[in-house]
Amino acid sequence: MKCVVCRGPAIIDVRRANANFCTDHFTKYCRDQTARAIHEFDMLDPADRVLVAVSGGKDSLAVWDILIGLGYQADGLYVGLGIGEYSDTSGNHARAFAEARGLHLIEVDLPTEYGYDIPTGARAARRAPCSACGTSKRHVFDASALEGGYDVLVTGHNLDDEAAVLFGNVLRWQTEYLARQMPVLAARNGFPKKVKPLVRLSERETAAYCIMSGIDYLVDECPMSAGNRHLGYKDALNTIELQSPGTKADFYSGFLRRASQLFRSAHHDLGPGTDELTHCERCGAPSTSELCAFCRLVDKATAATSNSGDEAQPVTLRPRSHAPRTAGERTNTEAEARP
Amino acid sequence: MKCVVCRGPAIIDVRRANANFCTDHFTKYCRDQTARAIHEFDMLDPADRVLVAVSGGKDSLAVWDILIGLGYQADGLYVGLGIGEYSDTSGNHARAFAEARGLHLIEVDLPTEYGYDIPTGARAARRAPCSACGTSKRHVFDASALEGGYDVLVTGHNLDDEAAVLFGNVLRWQTEYLARQMPVLAARNGFPKKVKPLVRLSERETAAYCIMSGIDYLVDECPMSAGNRHLGYKDALNTIELQSPGTKADFYSGFLRRASQLFRSAHHDLGPGTDELTHCERCGAPSTSELCAFCRLVDKATAATSNSGDEAQPVTLRPRSHAPRTAGERTNTEAEARP
Repeated sequence: MKCVVCRGPAIIDVRRANANFCTDHFTKYCRDQTARAIHEFDMLDPADRVLVAVSGGKDSLAVWDILIGLGYQADGLYVGLGIGEYSDTSGNHARAFAEARGLHLIEVDLPTEYGYDIPTGARAARRAPCSACGTSKRHVFDASALEGGYDVLVTGHNLDDEAAVLFGNVLRWQTEYLARQMPVLAARNGFPKKVKPLVRLSERETAAYCIMSGIDYLVDECPMSAGNRHLGYKDALNTIELQSPGTKADFYSGFLRRASQLFRSAHHDLGPGTDELTHCERCGAPSTSELCAFCRLVDKATAATSNSGDEAQPVTLRPRSHAPRTAGERTNTEAEARP
Repeated sequence: MKCVVCRGPAIIDVRRANANFCTDHFTKYCRDQTARAIHEFDMLDPADRVLVAVSGGKDSLAVWDILIGLGYQADGLYVGLGIGEYSDTSGNHARAFAEARGLHLIEVDLPTEYGYDIPTGARAARRAPCSACGTSKRHVFDASALEGGYDVLVTGHNLDDEAAVLFGNVLRWQTEYLARQMPVLAARNGFPKKVKPLVRLSERETAAYCIMSGIDYLVDECPMSAGNRHLGYKDALNTIELQSPGTKADFYSGFLRRASQLFRSAHHDLGPGTDELTHCERCGAPSTSELCAFCRLVDKATAATSNSGDEAQPVTLRPRSHAPRTAGERTNTEAEARP
């Protein structure tokens, strides 16, 4: 097996590209694919101040590493979710990565800053853990990016993530979500610009990138994600990919090229002004009701913590003063929720 | 386990309907679902002369049985494909079903009437067997329905078939095929009206219907369909259905209700007159070229038979005199191709 570029010994095959690579040319391939996605979707400007949401897993550390390698000025943001040992370990991986490279890592710990953890919050709100986690992370991501004056928020969603979300949206023909499933969301009233530079790389490829680049990432899946529907969608797509390499990439890129616009056209009436939106009374985030989804979650979660006899952590909700977002944007962020 | 209707002992559960049924009420459920599809999509008129394409398998015999039970005047059409013992057995099942009920079965044997069989035709045309088979069956279905003066051609495509085809079209975002994947195709220049009354019933349900109704159908899958992509798509959807019963039905019905129109709107420019179409010089079927796809297949297949030293069967191509069909219809029938 020879590297398709230098004919040296290859150590990985990328079946959908019908190519084998040595270490150097595989990491170059990953950087090139990322640069191509950034260029194709106009994700980043060289002068942008970038905030990368990092979990300590392969995708977020890979994208941070690649962005730094491509010359971007990128800080990290780690959100402590309070999921026992899993969170402790994931935080350590994120911190070690940043320290070793002299990068700046912002940390926001939910239990310390908001008085609840994801297991408690999900139980109290009677929601699936991934749903409560998504609401929490989106709030902290948005708030941190805006407060820190960052131009763009980067997340590590890879091709497998996006294809699985797309599959879920298609299985239920959630046309509003389909209208908004894009690798770039422009900044709008109350929301930072958000981009997903890894949409051209598969899960296997980001893992291989980390291994070859000496990045020590947290391998374990989140213990609360068991039974998550998207894991089932990933399995289904992987089975088909095995038989027909390239299916997953064609599914996602074909959607963006040939179908996405149809759904956007159908939902153009959901643009700004259609719905009556306001700010959350407490935190200032755009919201359809007096309290935003995040503040309602915090209320339920901290009430549960108080009732259980545990000492509640002090709740420090920092007001934001942004113009209202639109109904479209709300659905947008919901559609983004990942396992 | 009790029947949801009569509280007597149930013998089958329909998880997506969250219901158990006894024999009588399950067969009634199957008839009701079929009647509902016929009504919902305006498939059949009580006075219609109906031609049912029967293979001897569970779906086509179930739909013929149900249509007769619902009072329709329905004859059968069996196409002999020359796939060895499989074809012999399937023909016997179709004949036995018709004879036992005093129904009229038209038979068209490809080797006798056109001088080739599917294995030879596929090899000669260098096409997948399911592709050559689809071209052959569609031609015979269309010609027989028109020559016999039938108002509608019925096929036994069930929910699993349609969901798998939809999944395949979505995976590649074949928006033209998506624009035309409907359970009813209106009659147009050179094509009979075609309908799929079983789209509300799953494969498991049509099999159970046959067993409970004493219909002796051919259980074996076609030996040439191994490796067919649609079987993989069915497996993938079944795995998801197991976890979330109802997903398959929601996927298909949601498409028809919420997405189908978007694709049709996008392809309205592909209506009649866009393309220069003519009739096949030999058989008269609508075609984009001098010879239609079927006649070209016959030419290759019979040339191969002659070259191999076997005695070629006499070729009896019956001219048809229909106005040209449109490009849209052509793609339509291609999109219908089933495993």
